[in-house]
Amino acid sequence: MKKINFSWNNRIGIGVMTGTSCDGIDISAVQFSGNSLSEFNVIISKSYPYPPEIKVFVNKCLTENVPIGDLSQFNYYISLVYGQSINQFIEQYLRLKPDFVAVHGQTIWHQPLSSDFFDKKVASTYQSINISALAKIIGLPVVGDFRAGDIALGGQGAPLVPIFDYYTFRSDKKSRVCVNIGGISNVSVIPKKCNLNEIIAYDCGPGNALIDFFTTEHFNKEYDENGEIARSGLFNKELFYNLIENDIYQQIQPPKSTGKEYYNNKFIHDSINLIPHLVNPKDVLNTLTHYTAYTIANNIKKYTDSSCEIIISGGGIHNQFLIDCLANYLRQYTINSTEQYGINPDYKESIAFAFLGYLFLNEENGNIPSATGANKETILGTLAI
Amino acid sequence: MKKINFSWNNRIGIGVMTGTSCDGIDISAVQFSGNSLSEFNVIISKSYPYPPEIKVFVNKCLTENVPIGDLSQFNYYISLVYGQSINQFIEQYLRLKPDFVAVHGQTIWHQPLSSDFFDKKVASTYQSINISALAKIIGLPVVGDFRAGDIALGGQGAPLVPIFDYYTFRSDKKSRVCVNIGGISNVSVIPKKCNLNEIIAYDCGPGNALIDFFTTEHFNKEYDENGEIARSGLFNKELFYNLIENDIYQQIQPPKSTGKEYYNNKFIHDSINLIPHLVNPKDVLNTLTHYTAYTIANNIKKYTDSSCEIIISGGGIHNQFLIDCLANYLRQYTINSTEQYGINPDYKESIAFAFLGYLFLNEENGNIPSATGANKETILGTLAI
Repeated sequence: MKKINFSWNNRIGIGVMTGTSCDGIDISAVQFSGNSLSEFNVIISKSYPYPPEIKVFVNKCLTENVPIGDLSQFNYYISLVYGQSINQFIEQYLRLKPDFVAVHGQTIWHQPLSSDFFDKKVASTYQSINISALAKIIGLPVVGDFRAGDIALGGQGAPLVPIFDYYTFRSDKKSRVCVNIGGISNVSVIPKKCNLNEIIAYDCGPGNALIDFFTTEHFNKEYDENGEIARSGLFNKELFYNLIENDIYQQIQPPKSTGKEYYNNKFIHDSINLIPHLVNPKDVLNTLTHYTAYTIANNIKKYTDSSCEIIISGGGIHNQFLIDCLANYLRQYTINSTEQYGINPDYKESIAFAFLGYLFLNEENGNIPSATGANKETILGTLAI
Repeated sequence: MKKINFSWNNRIGIGVMTGTSCDGIDISAVQFSGNSLSEFNVIISKSYPYPPEIKVFVNKCLTENVPIGDLSQFNYYISLVYGQSINQFIEQYLRLKPDFVAVHGQTIWHQPLSSDFFDKKVASTYQSINISALAKIIGLPVVGDFRAGDIALGGQGAPLVPIFDYYTFRSDKKSRVCVNIGGISNVSVIPKKCNLNEIIAYDCGPGNALIDFFTTEHFNKEYDENGEIARSGLFNKELFYNLIENDIYQQIQPPKSTGKEYYNNKFIHDSINLIPHLVNPKDVLNTLTHYTAYTIANNIKKYTDSSCEIIISGGGIHNQFLIDCLANYLRQYTINSTEQYGINPDYKESIAFAFLGYLFLNEENGNIPSATGANKETILGTLAI
């Protein structure tokens, strides 16, 4: 029995992503042909500023106890912020009224491993937003809360983008691996002719996280533009091997996920401190960039050979030195950007969430158990109308 | 355009209610004919125990700041508790698999009046549960979060039962008023031949709250069984008039709602303390019971004449002295229980939530702006599948 019975030909969906960095709202409009899940076109993508109070509030939630009233208000506040940006986006860039909006919400807690809570073992994730309130504010159906269903089935609730990678990049002729370089890097390996459950997808290690942390600490900038500071430094072999040796995340088998709780200043200094003499900060940055490229390359090589096409996205592609290093470690491979497939590499996630919303409305499963570790496939999301 | 297109003939829905008193989970199974919204039969209703930790946690949330991790875990914990009871209920009492479940969730915050939050005016409500997790646990579609949409449109998010009263009790021949006596009492006035927007519905004052508070304080019992302690006391005219004089909630025009934040020990003692001599506790309880009946009767008389049938429900109907007092204040009226209409008076709310879930799935509006104060009618709820 079909539980929802849309006529979903030629629908326009909007995907909205806000990451843990709280640096803005990414919005993408996607037109779905309705013929097959693989047929869609990205109409336009834009980014909107996030009030700085949000980052302050999210960080406060992680470091101190908060009044329940504030958390309740925050759900509706975030809905108002999303609503304003979405309304502005639609008004300014879309000629046709979209049919639905799919939202990630603002993560403020993610605990995929269960722990004792009263008399039960409980795992949970919390993406702040109220989709019913948002649906009223924008006057459109909203799909949200995509991670909960997978968590309830024993999964990590992440990664969720691999199913989008599958429907977008799977080929009968060519194996492909999608690499998204955000703060953390992740890979989706899509062997040629594969089925959904043959996808290997996981967080493979640092993305921009180490580079950004160290740049902020030593160069008073938020990031190393084009990787120019790193390029001006020298490779430090000793630091490089210390990083390799200290990185225990690399020894864990997937499914796995990580974050800035691990790849942070402490991770960097644990390796620097093992060196008895001072290392020039530019050399550290050069080596951290090398190390980031090296771990990405290493993870790709584990599951592919050089006939596999690499398709990259995420903010890291703007760090030209990082990309040069990556190309160097993967000399035999072809590396393309998602741009060549009509996917703006800065907006892959918001596009993927529009796709996840479309999957929900078609009652198609959204998780990939081989990637998340859930005990079965399931429909992801909740709908407000 | 229909956004959801069920074929909803002859569907079985389950409604689940947990109140702010945290004293258990009420579950009702309802069969909807599909011919009209008014045609349904309650199959069975049962109550399940709530782990006592829930009451402790909810009270803690109201009195101190809490870790976001605990709140996140609590959403999933409540979903597991709901899931166990629902699965048990289905297994033990239903021969047919239900088609959907509609849940209230556990209220831990309700702030219908907006206040400043960062740069915006924000109102919010927070019913703890994760409906996507619950849908996976029970393997059934779940509708929930019924209050949010009304709040987003400027309403109180309450009362939500009046639309159920309308479809159940509206008559072309007879005016009716539904009175639910829980901790707080509320009325739904349904004039004969009325339209939805002619309903008057609001919290009218104390239900069992004052009686229970005083019984606990002076007689070491949770409630006054059958009203026997109150019946053994004497009516104190001075206290009665003090209560009338001090009760400023009675002077507010609807839409309005109240709670135990107002009708509590302080409310009682503010009136007792005005009397220079000691009053026998049995006399206080007698007078509080009279006062409760008096305010209910008074609110009914404001909007009806004695041709209007009174239909009562809620735990208060088990307090025979309260009901006798009420009958006395409403001598010209006919008073019936919802039982006479096939609605177990102890389970009216869980039955009403099954109905609200059914409304969502039929894309029918669920709020009544004249009762909630919202700026328009709207579909209430979110769906997980």
